[in-house]
Amino acid sequence: MTSVTAFAPATVSNVGCGFDVLGFALESPGDEVEARFAPAGVVIEDITGDGGRLPREAARNTASVAVLALLTKLGERRGVALRIRKGLPLSSGLGGSAASAAAAVVAVDALIGARSSIDTLIACALEGERLGAGSAHADNIAPSICGGFVLVRRPSPPDVLRLPVPMGLTAVVVHPDLEIETAGARALLGDTVPLADAVRQWANMGALVDGLHRGDFALIGRALEDTIAEPRRAALIPGLALIKRAAVGAGALGCSISGSGPSLFALCAGAGVASRVADAMVESVRAAIGGDPQVYVSSLEARGARVVSTCAS
Amino acid sequence: MTSVTAFAPATVSNVGCGFDVLGFALESPGDEVEARFAPAGVVIEDITGDGGRLPREAARNTASVAVLALLTKLGERRGVALRIRKGLPLSSGLGGSAASAAAAVVAVDALIGARSSIDTLIACALEGERLGAGSAHADNIAPSICGGFVLVRRPSPPDVLRLPVPMGLTAVVVHPDLEIETAGARALLGDTVPLADAVRQWANMGALVDGLHRGDFALIGRALEDTIAEPRRAALIPGLALIKRAAVGAGALGCSISGSGPSLFALCAGAGVASRVADAMVESVRAAIGGDPQVYVSSLEARGARVVSTCAS
Repeated sequence: MTSVTAFAPATVSNVGCGFDVLGFALESPGDEVEARFAPAGVVIEDITGDGGRLPREAARNTASVAVLALLTKLGERRGVALRIRKGLPLSSGLGGSAASAAAAVVAVDALIGARSSIDTLIACALEGERLGAGSAHADNIAPSICGGFVLVRRPSPPDVLRLPVPMGLTAVVVHPDLEIETAGARALLGDTVPLADAVRQWANMGALVDGLHRGDFALIGRALEDTIAEPRRAALIPGLALIKRAAVGAGALGCSISGSGPSLFALCAGAGVASRVADAMVESVRAAIGGDPQVYVSSLEARGARVVSTCAS
Repeated sequence: MTSVTAFAPATVSNVGCGFDVLGFALESPGDEVEARFAPAGVVIEDITGDGGRLPREAARNTASVAVLALLTKLGERRGVALRIRKGLPLSSGLGGSAASAAAAVVAVDALIGARSSIDTLIACALEGERLGAGSAHADNIAPSICGGFVLVRRPSPPDVLRLPVPMGLTAVVVHPDLEIETAGARALLGDTVPLADAVRQWANMGALVDGLHRGDFALIGRALEDTIAEPRRAALIPGLALIKRAAVGAGALGCSISGSGPSLFALCAGAGVASRVADAMVESVRAAIGGDPQVYVSSLEARGARVVSTCAS
């Protein structure tokens, strides 16, 4: 029986001034989903790498809900069985539920041979994300599927813009030994924000996109400021101000929270700087939080979700 | 005695998603300020074109306050006398106070021969704008001085980005026979905004800057949406929804309020479309508001404030 396995990468969302609308893909880590046909509906055969914590019930799992949306969209009557291998730490702020949903729709789309559009894949994966995150933002889904650095102008129907990435722009991501639940972190924001903070956020957003187009690293650094989410979530991450200072002190253009945290990202002009920034961030995370932080360094030109193997047996 | 006269153009600020941070210059109309040395301090000798409504007292006039800031900055002990010719209608939403301040600082800077930086001219003109608008945003001052389409990442100290303008991008501005006071229009906004509206605003801001860089007129059109100021100020302009529909129906990429109104602007892909859009907007403004609206059509590559004559007598 044919099976298709797809990989989808971790993603950094929010990215400073881009709360709910900006995200970029990492080269690794990521999730893998293996799909094969089954009698009817969607079943989850197995999940590894989650310590038994993710729901196996199809109606409650982000990957299977996304696949069900795709099957419905395609009018596909065959069922699908999924095996999920989590490479991403849970509740890390690196788009874990998005990566599983993205890998699942890409695997199943290839299994069926449907060659769905990127917009269709995003829209279906977003159905899974809605379950995982409690609301439907595509700032993890879209970069996990498309790769690179993306701006989600509208999540539904998807209006996703692929932003240019200046040569050498490199991300450092440090995942401290903490867990933050997305729903709780979102509740900290409230439903309204001061107009003055919002004005600064959209000024920075325009400046960041301008900086990416011009390859102006200094401007990218000035624009990597979050006046909305970071100040309201700072208390979730002990020592955040110190860690940010360590990153910038080691040469980072800027540093902020990835998604709703606890992971932190920094953007750097080149791999050499990124390596020094990674060391500085790990050291300051160890000092402030303890434990054994994980660190990832990745070009911002990372590829999106893709089929990694097809087996006919 | 030497006198220097400078012209500074009208400007469209806010520009849809760019409340308080985006603005562009028009080719015309504009204000002219003539400056010559005087015994001490700053005096206003004359103002024409304002129907006698602007303050002649130097401490209360936007142009003289801006000039005083420049003289102080330069350590200039000589005084200056100003003659102001308003080419801009008052309270029109076209940056009238900014144009007078911009023309005044450019004229006086040339009179002194100081060759101040753009940032210095913006910072000093902003002191005048603070008086006129009740708060210091540079989204009229910066384009009136620099020309073109600008993003004010920070007003103070100025961090002003000149955005690229795709070939053919053309503005239509219609000034209905209404007056709206900036302070009242600002009060309608309140101090907080819904987070969901703000997220859409910065998504559109990123998309607009991306569209300008790519020369993607369709994207520019989609991004010309204002979820913050326009919905809260719509009631100030009778028939706003109809006028917007008329503009887009005639081919405009988008249409919104200029500054705090009542002027309306539309962006168009080319002068031919702009001409049809101008006709449609004037007709619908006449139907909705009556009176005799003024209309201006301008490339978005309009020049900024400049010396137009120097007289030695």
